[in-house]
Amino acid sequence: IETKNNSALLSLLEDIHYADIAEIINELNEDEATYIIKLLNSDKTSDILTELDDDVRESILGNLSAKEIAKELDELDTDDAADIVGELPKEMVQQVISKLEDREHAKDIVDLLRFDENSAGGLMAKELVKVNENWNVLTCVKEMRVQAENVTRVHSIYVVDDEGKLKGRLSLKDLLTTSTKTHIKDVYISKVDHVNVNEKPEEVARIMSKYDLEAIPVIDEIGRLVGRITIDDIVDVIREEAEKDYQMAAGISKDVEADDSIWELTKARWPWLLIGMMGGLGAASIISGFQEALTKFPVLLIFIPLMQATAGNVGVQSSAIVVQGLANDTIKGAIWGRLGKELLLGLVNGLALAFVFLIISHFGFKTTYLESIAIGIALVTVVVNAAVIGTFIPIFLNKRGIDPAIATGPFITTSNDVLGILIYFSIAKVFLGF
Amino acid sequence: IETKNNSALLSLLEDIHYADIAEIINELNEDEATYIIKLLNSDKTSDILTELDDDVRESILGNLSAKEIAKELDELDTDDAADIVGELPKEMVQQVISKLEDREHAKDIVDLLRFDENSAGGLMAKELVKVNENWNVLTCVKEMRVQAENVTRVHSIYVVDDEGKLKGRLSLKDLLTTSTKTHIKDVYISKVDHVNVNEKPEEVARIMSKYDLEAIPVIDEIGRLVGRITIDDIVDVIREEAEKDYQMAAGISKDVEADDSIWELTKARWPWLLIGMMGGLGAASIISGFQEALTKFPVLLIFIPLMQATAGNVGVQSSAIVVQGLANDTIKGAIWGRLGKELLLGLVNGLALAFVFLIISHFGFKTTYLESIAIGIALVTVVVNAAVIGTFIPIFLNKRGIDPAIATGPFITTSNDVLGILIYFSIAKVFLGF
Repeated sequence: IETKNNSALLSLLEDIHYADIAEIINELNEDEATYIIKLLNSDKTSDILTELDDDVRESILGNLSAKEIAKELDELDTDDAADIVGELPKEMVQQVISKLEDREHAKDIVDLLRFDENSAGGLMAKELVKVNENWNVLTCVKEMRVQAENVTRVHSIYVVDDEGKLKGRLSLKDLLTTSTKTHIKDVYISKVDHVNVNEKPEEVARIMSKYDLEAIPVIDEIGRLVGRITIDDIVDVIREEAEKDYQMAAGISKDVEADDSIWELTKARWPWLLIGMMGGLGAASIISGFQEALTKFPVLLIFIPLMQATAGNVGVQSSAIVVQGLANDTIKGAIWGRLGKELLLGLVNGLALAFVFLIISHFGFKTTYLESIAIGIALVTVVVNAAVIGTFIPIFLNKRGIDPAIATGPFITTSNDVLGILIYFSIAKVFLGF
Repeated sequence: IETKNNSALLSLLEDIHYADIAEIINELNEDEATYIIKLLNSDKTSDILTELDDDVRESILGNLSAKEIAKELDELDTDDAADIVGELPKEMVQQVISKLEDREHAKDIVDLLRFDENSAGGLMAKELVKVNENWNVLTCVKEMRVQAENVTRVHSIYVVDDEGKLKGRLSLKDLLTTSTKTHIKDVYISKVDHVNVNEKPEEVARIMSKYDLEAIPVIDEIGRLVGRITIDDIVDVIREEAEKDYQMAAGISKDVEADDSIWELTKARWPWLLIGMMGGLGAASIISGFQEALTKFPVLLIFIPLMQATAGNVGVQSSAIVVQGLANDTIKGAIWGRLGKELLLGLVNGLALAFVFLIISHFGFKTTYLESIAIGIALVTVVVNAAVIGTFIPIFLNKRGIDPAIATGPFITTSNDVLGILIYFSIAKVFLGF
């Protein structure tokens, strides 16, 4: 369809939502994508740009002039515009900013660039509706009409004092249902949830979803209202956070998608595969150390995979529960209580597994009683150990300020694999006396 | 603090947000919790109830009379009220409903009970602001003021025809910035995103976050506006979905938390541990079958854990990417293309791992050239196989309408463990000729 340029294409795309057009463009090659972006006018393309995959957007922006980019940015909210400017090459940033028509807008974008992307300041937009506490409702409504022109969704009206400090809020609903001649000072609600510019995005997400907020004002170090974060940005934060944790648990270290290049995918997976391999080689040296014993009791070796699989599974289960509990703030109380509980849980699960094992190994694999008992006890110990390690490592990392999610997946599996095999042979040695 | 009843407690709790009180109550015992709920008045306790853990809420409601429960429900939005009614024992439901003061509210709650919890109908609330297309703006504003009293957040004003069919929407902002004497028919926006009552919650979440919506109207089979879903409910859906997938990947089959009882935690973990154990025992029989070979080439056995760990890791990585891609709808194109890509990716990763292995095994474990090469080739095959299986199973399950997330974690690890060991010995057999 995209080979010949025509106005038919234009009218075709007119009725399609920008998020859908973005999906189509993600599938096109660079030339076709640039062609479409140039064809459409900037109030639509600016929204499309925000929805594109990072790499597609980068290549399209590379084909646009500073002036064309500035035109797109003029149409966008400050937070989205700042995100795009942040991705531009350094030499381009100044050119683009200087070509922005709306100077107030340009100032806001530059302000936002100062903030760490990974903070409330990096998420917030400058667009909001605020009124001074000293105004009366009439001035307030007039001012609001002007301000509302620039704000996609109004949500709350924030009340500030003469220094710009956040004092409270007025709800839109109150404004619809109240008489029109009062002082703002006398009607505003002084309790308003807010976050500091330096707050972490995950914490903002937690606060907003706990209190069911759809927008939250952001204040700076001295309490001045500097911006606003809306729930749609928080939905993205929650999704990204969940994806990151999920991928980390699966041993994928960077944010990749199924459609990325083989090279990107390999880079993301390789470190974890290497860790797994080192674990496997570690296990190999342990087995080498016990090789004489294995010639005496060859039955021991056939249960190596069982020990390894069980240790890995238990470790991942324990760590996943703890990591999730830490993320949701539902883990309270002392670390020792937690470890004690996991120990007990490991003991219950381990004994149950050992019971099943004893029956199957005796009838299925014709092990001697002594061998069965030795392996059964090893199994319980391996399970308890894996449960305790799986609980301890994430809590330990969290106390040290490291993201505990890194502890799930290959990391915990590998260490439990190796430890499990070591415990297995050590206990067998004690019981079978080789 | 809770031993002596006093009004001091009441004034203390007055200034605390209901979500925070709910967190405190979750930590108390049943009597204390019930005592606090009875102490506070129902406009606050009703909100607290919605935020409590399921089991805590259940035990508190068990201590309240039908009339007390009805009083709480009168304060709640229809969707939250219906959720609570849905949790009550059957004989209680009718009593509670009959005691509701607001009969319109009671009717709405009963309507909502009809819907499957796992559908848009089960998520939506009846509270919304709607206007008839035949009204003029004046009537409309008057009506809105009345309706807005019952709606916590207005968001959009929906426009319906005489039969109640959804025609479009009016934005609040337009109403703030437009003159007051026009017909609704002439000013409403006829394009409005909406979902069907039978739509799945995950699909509603996808649509709302794709189009950055904060509320979406729900229509029934013949197009009538029956309710509205707001973004705060969708945030909960996204969180729950992410937690479920994460736990499934870790081999935990029910929604449990770190603070649940040992019995609950055991039930959730046990099935997966058993699958892992069966896998381990399966591997044991495979090794038994090759036992003679192992006495001739004992070096083979020390690399069993390596094969198993690598197969497991690769399988989980591949399946996690595919599961996530399926959830985000970013996997396009034919299944064969996807499999081909994973095959290539597996080959690249496998060859790289085999290269590292060859060097380490030669110098570290003094394997012969033939042994090294046989094991290296087995490693590549195991990796490719795990990648293909890890890709194929989730796609296959998805086509069958089964949640592909079940394929990650222990399920894929276990099958790859067993297959990996089988492949390992089979290839070693071919090369070493035992």
